[in-house]
Amino acid sequence: MLNPKFSAKPAAGTKSLGIRELSELCAERAKVVGIENVYDFTLGNPSTPPPQAVLDCIKELAEAEDQVAIHGYSSNQGFDETREAIAKSYNRRFGCNMTKDNFIMVSGATTALHTISIILNIDENSELIAIAPFFPAYHTVAAVGGNKLVIVPPDTENFQINMEALEAAINPNTQGVIINSPNNPSGTIYSPETIQKIANLLIKKSEEYGHAIYIIADEPYRELVYTDEIVPYIPDYYPNTIIAYSYSKSLSFAGDRIGYVCTDNNIEDFDGVWRALKKAALTAGNVCAPSFFQRVIEKCVDVEPNMDDYIYNRNLLMNGLQEIGIHTANPSGAFYLFVQAPFGMSAPEFAELCVKHDIYIVPADSFGCPGWLRLSYCVSRATCEGSLPGFAAAYKEAEAMAAAK
Amino acid sequence: MLNPKFSAKPAAGTKSLGIRELSELCAERAKVVGIENVYDFTLGNPSTPPPQAVLDCIKELAEAEDQVAIHGYSSNQGFDETREAIAKSYNRRFGCNMTKDNFIMVSGATTALHTISIILNIDENSELIAIAPFFPAYHTVAAVGGNKLVIVPPDTENFQINMEALEAAINPNTQGVIINSPNNPSGTIYSPETIQKIANLLIKKSEEYGHAIYIIADEPYRELVYTDEIVPYIPDYYPNTIIAYSYSKSLSFAGDRIGYVCTDNNIEDFDGVWRALKKAALTAGNVCAPSFFQRVIEKCVDVEPNMDDYIYNRNLLMNGLQEIGIHTANPSGAFYLFVQAPFGMSAPEFAELCVKHDIYIVPADSFGCPGWLRLSYCVSRATCEGSLPGFAAAYKEAEAMAAAK
Repeated sequence: MLNPKFSAKPAAGTKSLGIRELSELCAERAKVVGIENVYDFTLGNPSTPPPQAVLDCIKELAEAEDQVAIHGYSSNQGFDETREAIAKSYNRRFGCNMTKDNFIMVSGATTALHTISIILNIDENSELIAIAPFFPAYHTVAAVGGNKLVIVPPDTENFQINMEALEAAINPNTQGVIINSPNNPSGTIYSPETIQKIANLLIKKSEEYGHAIYIIADEPYRELVYTDEIVPYIPDYYPNTIIAYSYSKSLSFAGDRIGYVCTDNNIEDFDGVWRALKKAALTAGNVCAPSFFQRVIEKCVDVEPNMDDYIYNRNLLMNGLQEIGIHTANPSGAFYLFVQAPFGMSAPEFAELCVKHDIYIVPADSFGCPGWLRLSYCVSRATCEGSLPGFAAAYKEAEAMAAAK
Repeated sequence: MLNPKFSAKPAAGTKSLGIRELSELCAERAKVVGIENVYDFTLGNPSTPPPQAVLDCIKELAEAEDQVAIHGYSSNQGFDETREAIAKSYNRRFGCNMTKDNFIMVSGATTALHTISIILNIDENSELIAIAPFFPAYHTVAAVGGNKLVIVPPDTENFQINMEALEAAINPNTQGVIINSPNNPSGTIYSPETIQKIANLLIKKSEEYGHAIYIIADEPYRELVYTDEIVPYIPDYYPNTIIAYSYSKSLSFAGDRIGYVCTDNNIEDFDGVWRALKKAALTAGNVCAPSFFQRVIEKCVDVEPNMDDYIYNRNLLMNGLQEIGIHTANPSGAFYLFVQAPFGMSAPEFAELCVKHDIYIVPADSFGCPGWLRLSYCVSRATCEGSLPGFAAAYKEAEAMAAAK
């Protein structure tokens, strides 16, 4: 009485080098050689505790009077006070004029993106565009809404956007373009010029096809910036922008599942878009965002991230790897260093070489960027320091393999 | 450049008496007459704080050493320790032999049910069955998986299950039957005899159609029982059972979004079902269940619910309304009293009469049970006490209206 659908096994011999699989491999190896002798750069799980103001706020809430309300449901859209606090922060930082009604609190960026994908399923041919390199979960994001995901190949020179390739990917079925800046995995911030070019292109294409093409601004890394570059506020360039935000990275809150969907007031058909978003959030499983952490956000909306470790790790690894001879992208933001497999090697080959030195980094083939690998430096300083000899050895072995060919 | 899909407004004149709408109406009224003068029985939002052991555990976690791990991601399936703790509790309570691998932690019962619905979409004709009265969100549950929801009419005599009607609803496309006991909204516990009858029927039908028909056991109210009735452990009766659990109600944790999906070991094709469940949880938006509260559950898995207020409210309202002459179901569990609109009135009509006395109760038309209303008694004792004169007046007015016809 089985359901044959469940019994279907993945095709034999499928190469499995996904993020979670590599992370689990590393955990197994750590049991053998000790956790201090493995270098796990696989996961985007913050390695620094939440800022002290956040930890203090959690303690206060744990001691607060009204524990019924703190642990009860909020409205589907989230607590008024939380959304008002975020609106004020936006108004101060970006000069906009928002209220609580510009926000719906959700369970992290995944739920935010699922919600947006659901509303952009205009008909059975709807397409979303992802620009490589991109986070592989965008495949699920598109599928959840019933949309086809179209991939724009990467600009591996600057990790900005190949505008001709983007234009070629847009067609009458395109409903949205996902813009993730600072970018996972490249660490790049899309420049104001890049955003302006996308805006111009999408305005032209929206007119040509007679319907809005939305920018889906996936911005969990907005607060993690290491240079003096500005992360453009996209609605200023392009009103038909829907923002997906998460506190997972900025407040080291990945397990607390708290974020929001937001639009500025200048989006066309504000009421229609918001009616659709509120309904879609329920379909995306968002009864309400976690109440306790909504209250934390209300009090800590402008708390700065704890970046000391990330700054140290970024500089150490970028300089260390470049000295070894490994080519990297310029990690302006987020907490990823994007490295090129040396000597024309494939990324899975270089990843395997690194594993021999107990270093675990993720081939970016599944990020739409073959030949590159993602290194998450949200790890301890010791992990970064300890990994450099292994990277040097792996690089030398790659060199020898290339010479022997 | 609008998307016409967003601009489509709900049909004019649609009668909107949903749970959240009534609750908002009540909140508006409270601003006028004062919160102490309205009687809001609309929401299933616990009115009692989490048990003291849970509150103490939250304080301990807030003070704990390793705040990085406490606020970081767990694995997709949840922390091993949390799942092991729950498995041990099951083994002790139900005599089974589970491990962590029988559980996936999710963001509340909604995510659990969405996950199960997704795996039960075997093909485009797949159907799930809900037994009236049922929680209206089951419509979304079915739709998220791409399944059709088929409704079995209620047994308004005992609020058990009309077995002939259930049998008539099952066909070759039936993939699952949702069993919600203790029931929202009737408060009824399905008896061992009822569960045995369902099991017999589904075994027969699974054989007849050559595929498993699963029981989806939606059990957030399992711990809230007021009588000496036993809530049957359904896998003992029917191995092909998938359990959706949430701590929202038992630990007054509705805003903390924590629950699980589980199956016993006796389910057919355990590996296949679990491969499907783990994948579906991601589609349902479950990156990981909230980590902080997973840790709370790990420590507090066997903490008993705070039921004193519910016991008081249940007895007061059941006796009070029955004395007035209002017919109610027998509320063995959960925190709902299910009442019949008196004098052959429709439920929306009686709800409107109650609103005139500032009492807000939910017509169960949307629960598949016209002529009945749901009263959530997870409210203050004062709300219950203060409502009785209003109920008596509404009943008298209903009587007068009936006499005038």
